[in-house]
Amino acid sequence: MVTVGIIGAGRIGKVHVESICTQVKNAKVKTLADPFINDDTESWAKNMGVEKVTKDYHEILTDPEINAVLICSSTDTHSPISVEAIKAGKHVFCEKPIDHDIEKIQEVIDALKTSNVKYQVGFNRRFDHNFEAVQRAVAEGKIGDTHLIKVTSRDPEPPSAEYVKVSGGMFLDMTIHDFDMVRFLAGCDAEEVYVEAAVLVDPAIGEAGDVDTAVITLKMENGAIAVIDNSRKAVYGYDQRAEVFGSKGMVATSNDTASAAVVSNADGITGEKPLYFFLERYMAAYAKEINCFIEAIENNTDTPLGVMDGLKPVLMGIAAKKSLDEHRPVKISEIV
Amino acid sequence: MVTVGIIGAGRIGKVHVESICTQVKNAKVKTLADPFINDDTESWAKNMGVEKVTKDYHEILTDPEINAVLICSSTDTHSPISVEAIKAGKHVFCEKPIDHDIEKIQEVIDALKTSNVKYQVGFNRRFDHNFEAVQRAVAEGKIGDTHLIKVTSRDPEPPSAEYVKVSGGMFLDMTIHDFDMVRFLAGCDAEEVYVEAAVLVDPAIGEAGDVDTAVITLKMENGAIAVIDNSRKAVYGYDQRAEVFGSKGMVATSNDTASAAVVSNADGITGEKPLYFFLERYMAAYAKEINCFIEAIENNTDTPLGVMDGLKPVLMGIAAKKSLDEHRPVKISEIV
Amino acid sequence: MVTVGIIGAGRIGKVHVESICTQVKNAKVKTLADPFINDDTESWAKNMGVEKVTKDYHEILTDPEINAVLICSSTDTHSPISVEAIKAGKHVFCEKPIDHDIEKIQEVIDALKTSNVKYQVGFNRRFDHNFEAVQRAVAEGKIGDTHLIKVTSRDPEPPSAEYVKVSGGMFLDMTIHDFDMVRFLAGCDAEEVYVEAAVLVDPAIGEAGDVDTAVITLKMENGAIAVIDNSRKAVYGYDQRAEVFGSKGMVATSNDTASAAVVSNADGITGEKPLYFFLERYMAAYAKEINCFIEAIENNTDTPLGVMDGLKPVLMGIAAKKSLDEHRPVKISEIV
Amino acid sequence: MVTVGIIGAGRIGKVHVESICTQVKNAKVKTLADPFINDDTESWAKNMGVEKVTKDYHEILTDPEINAVLICSSTDTHSPISVEAIKAGKHVFCEKPIDHDIEKIQEVIDALKTSNVKYQVGFNRRFDHNFEAVQRAVAEGKIGDTHLIKVTSRDPEPPSAEYVKVSGGMFLDMTIHDFDMVRFLAGCDAEEVYVEAAVLVDPAIGEAGDVDTAVITLKMENGAIAVIDNSRKAVYGYDQRAEVFGSKGMVATSNDTASAAVVSNADGITGEKPLYFFLERYMAAYAKEINCFIEAIENNTDTPLGVMDGLKPVLMGIAAKKSLDEHRPVKISEIV
Repeated sequence: MVTVGIIGAGRIGKVHVESICTQVKNAKVKTLADPFINDDTESWAKNMGVEKVTKDYHEILTDPEINAVLICSSTDTHSPISVEAIKAGKHVFCEKPIDHDIEKIQEVIDALKTSNVKYQVGFNRRFDHNFEAVQRAVAEGKIGDTHLIKVTSRDPEPPSAEYVKVSGGMFLDMTIHDFDMVRFLAGCDAEEVYVEAAVLVDPAIGEAGDVDTAVITLKMENGAIAVIDNSRKAVYGYDQRAEVFGSKGMVATSNDTASAAVVSNADGITGEKPLYFFLERYMAAYAKEINCFIEAIENNTDTPLGVMDGLKPVLMGIAAKKSLDEHRPVKISEIV
Repeated sequence: MVTVGIIGAGRIGKVHVESICTQVKNAKVKTLADPFINDDTESWAKNMGVEKVTKDYHEILTDPEINAVLICSSTDTHSPISVEAIKAGKHVFCEKPIDHDIEKIQEVIDALKTSNVKYQVGFNRRFDHNFEAVQRAVAEGKIGDTHLIKVTSRDPEPPSAEYVKVSGGMFLDMTIHDFDMVRFLAGCDAEEVYVEAAVLVDPAIGEAGDVDTAVITLKMENGAIAVIDNSRKAVYGYDQRAEVFGSKGMVATSNDTASAAVVSNADGITGEKPLYFFLERYMAAYAKEINCFIEAIENNTDTPLGVMDGLKPVLMGIAAKKSLDEHRPVKISEIV
Repeated sequence: MVTVGIIGAGRIGKVHVESICTQVKNAKVKTLADPFINDDTESWAKNMGVEKVTKDYHEILTDPEINAVLICSSTDTHSPISVEAIKAGKHVFCEKPIDHDIEKIQEVIDALKTSNVKYQVGFNRRFDHNFEAVQRAVAEGKIGDTHLIKVTSRDPEPPSAEYVKVSGGMFLDMTIHDFDMVRFLAGCDAEEVYVEAAVLVDPAIGEAGDVDTAVITLKMENGAIAVIDNSRKAVYGYDQRAEVFGSKGMVATSNDTASAAVVSNADGITGEKPLYFFLERYMAAYAKEINCFIEAIENNTDTPLGVMDGLKPVLMGIAAKKSLDEHRPVKISEIV
Repeated sequence: MVTVGIIGAGRIGKVHVESICTQVKNAKVKTLADPFINDDTESWAKNMGVEKVTKDYHEILTDPEINAVLICSSTDTHSPISVEAIKAGKHVFCEKPIDHDIEKIQEVIDALKTSNVKYQVGFNRRFDHNFEAVQRAVAEGKIGDTHLIKVTSRDPEPPSAEYVKVSGGMFLDMTIHDFDMVRFLAGCDAEEVYVEAAVLVDPAIGEAGDVDTAVITLKMENGAIAVIDNSRKAVYGYDQRAEVFGSKGMVATSNDTASAAVVSNADGITGEKPLYFFLERYMAAYAKEINCFIEAIENNTDTPLGVMDGLKPVLMGIAAKKSLDEHRPVKISEIV
């Protein structure tokens, strides 16, 4: 039984509290820490079976009963708390991204070098049933050598301009998941990236210095070409698809819907929209990634997504921004 | 918070233990009773958070802390334990069917007349996301007046001949779910049933006096015609579909699959099979039906499936058997 | 090159003129006969390449250049003109049904006994690409032994009450195609039929003595059970589907649409309706059945649908009407 | 009635002979010219109703009865014969591409300036039912402002290395159709193109100086971003899809198949592959484009695809090649 402390009681922190309390075997949440925790959250957590609630996450790091820490706090705290937790000897699950600053990620890498703790990054989509099935088909050779990878990733609603300003930009905030997905499906790293992007959804996003629509082409180390298309606003819901094409065929996945019901009437044949957003689509994936983290601790094996898997998509995101700024293809090797 | 006792620790009893312990809010399992309970089940239950395990279900009925009982024991005990539990003042959730004998069901109905407890029957499919969506479309008038109802229900593997002998026959064992589904989708009762059936899957089923393949036509009180097709063996998995056709259109649902991944290669375009069987397909529905039962207790409202909803499909099953035996359409009113 | 005369210049006669003139190799239409032919039709036919237009079909039967006759006149004339044409030594393609009266069909059978001409009945749906693919899968053993056959057949609009009165009733007018389809998919004849039917679409149809909605169950000679569902009005268009289920799997077909375009928006994911009616859905099938007829003449082989294939669905339709009237299952052997 | 001469009796020339003879009203083929025409083709053409066959296309250009010419000869002859035909006062339908050399296309443009003949280029895919439906949805505003356009275009088999050497390269030979499709769906021209391409299908294609796999990103004049993915070899057949995403939703089309039949068995749920190649997929589109050409002549209206529509995709193809060679985004305005 792994005893867990969770740092950060925002949306994603609560997701992990709930899934550990209800769907993760061999783990329990002892402590939930958040400087701004309120009474509602406290009583909700207690009701879920969390033993202790605190404003100070150091109470987690210093608790000898706690084996593992989930870092769900704001992005700028991910890397310093990661280092603190590693030094405190706790296994660490860190939400994505580890940091927008490569040097800060390097500090985490360095801390791990002199430690035996497990480290996992929260790229939850790898644990989604659809993307898992696509990757499995590729890994099993069902499509032969990979030639083309296509990832569609569109949010149902754009973030506020305020959020955009502190988000690190679309590539580090949103596309970073797709960069990870491309690495997952390709089974290798990207060499080069080219971005074509625009502000088509909301001028306020442009005024905040960001883009909201993009097509991102990547050359992969195995020779395959990948392409990601992003939009901050798909009115029909969260659009999360992937397609991998190769010498022996293609594997592709469409979206999940709330039901398979289809209405046929004078207007046409109408099925349900994709599930609204990431909480609806990926709830099972959130539970599964934590189960894998707990298993890696219990069996003393590698986590499925180590610190380097946290670094690589950040490099890709920085290269993408550079490509947009300089209007040219940028090699990933230019970044570090 | 409703305190629950569960009688029967077989497959379905365990499903309810697990879903209450992990997915049903406002309920906890205090006691699990089964005359044949073994050490493995006991330690599994304790691990899930069940407080007490016993061989004698009377310990549940006499426990003043326990508000509600789930009857998951063998079919022949459903009605007598229902009566006992009602008399003990416990709310009752009873797995389907209440009984194969109408008089026994009548005893439950009688016991409820002088009691204020809630009673719910376990027709779990009404809580499946797909069938719920179909029924909702019908209820909202999206297809106008209902003219035709089609239910496909095929199991992936036939039961053993031993099971068949004690099952009450396919209509009371398997089709009973489809009879309930037809009532659910039609929003009314059946008037008449006609059966065309055969032994096409396994001769041993025929030797045991049963059939394994059937097309069952029903005339509904609202004038609609319903048709159920059953097979005990669909090699591609559990096939559970429904279609309702009316004056303004049609609503239909196909099956759920493990993923939406589709492989295109020289052999064709291939998606996944339906989920294997009821445990895979209906796990969420099992949790949802118990949530509704607990809510009915907490809010003192009617359960979604009362004792009469338990009786009606049994009448339809008995009429179906009579239709098969006498090779003619049989009115439901002939049965009681 | 087969020289053809076409008797009847109504909707279906024109379909055959057009397909022979544009899509059928090795055949040409020399003469088109219709007692009510007008100038528009005449100039249209001439424009299509038809050599001669007449009001008297005897000019076709007596023309030594004409090898083959297509009988597309009103249903009551099908059998007498068939007999005349056979006696005149012409190969005959006769639209369905040959007749509603079994004795009249018997006269055609008798005429054929002393003749060497080819005779084909116009059950066009056997030549549809979708139903052909379903039948081929069954015939190739892909689904093993057949257990269940399901045919859905719904028209987009009901006929007028006037038409209904002279139509012979829904079973001989509309379901007759589905009876043929069941025979085609089963690869054998029906033994027994049971009908559950109602007037749900248009009371005027009921007043005309007919039904507009039905579920028809058939026991087939190979042990399979077939079920047809019919409606005279599907607001979403012509609904023509089939499903065959067996020991090794299932093959099914959905409808054709004008395009594969799908719109995703805030209302859902919407594809196109089925093609509107038989002229849209079966145009290619009409050309294909005539091609097969011409090939049978040229190669002196059996036509794919002989006179007995014209008789059998009529027997099924008469048995269906008897089942409806007497409210019981009726054996086909009761009819003749 | 338009009298047509067809120059070139290769694969595509025969397609046009057949469709005009069978599916195009108001047109007839008087003469078919090809320097290498053989007896088989001659007798086939005569059988189709072609009056005259010749080795010298000048017999077409000098025939006063012939109003319109279809140029289906080898690519290098398209522009000179176009000029000759225009000067001879014939309406011209010219297969794509007009030429690989912009100056040669300019000569056609110049010839048209002093002529009143109609000129149409053979981008047949615009007349495909699926792409028409997608474009119509966009044009009708169903998806709002266009943000993203995605075109998938993959051939079932790569051409021979010999063909590749004279083909003008993949962008002018194959992608040129997709460049036209992007213009069709966007309703405007491209401003800039970026290519990521590779040799992944056949090394011989690389040795011939070409690529066989590509992802091509385009910035459109209306601000939308388009992306084309190409492969010379999709083992599952001709893959021709498009998706347009905008402020109010998305419209997309998948492929056509030979039938809608789906087999469910122990291996999964399998539908048919896309139609094999362009002759199977686009036969109806070939007939439709000629119908539109004939209508434009008869009604004295603009053809749907004028000479500038022939020029633009060539510019895009040349820019794409330059992008590949110089490994940078290239503006279309750099080309001319």
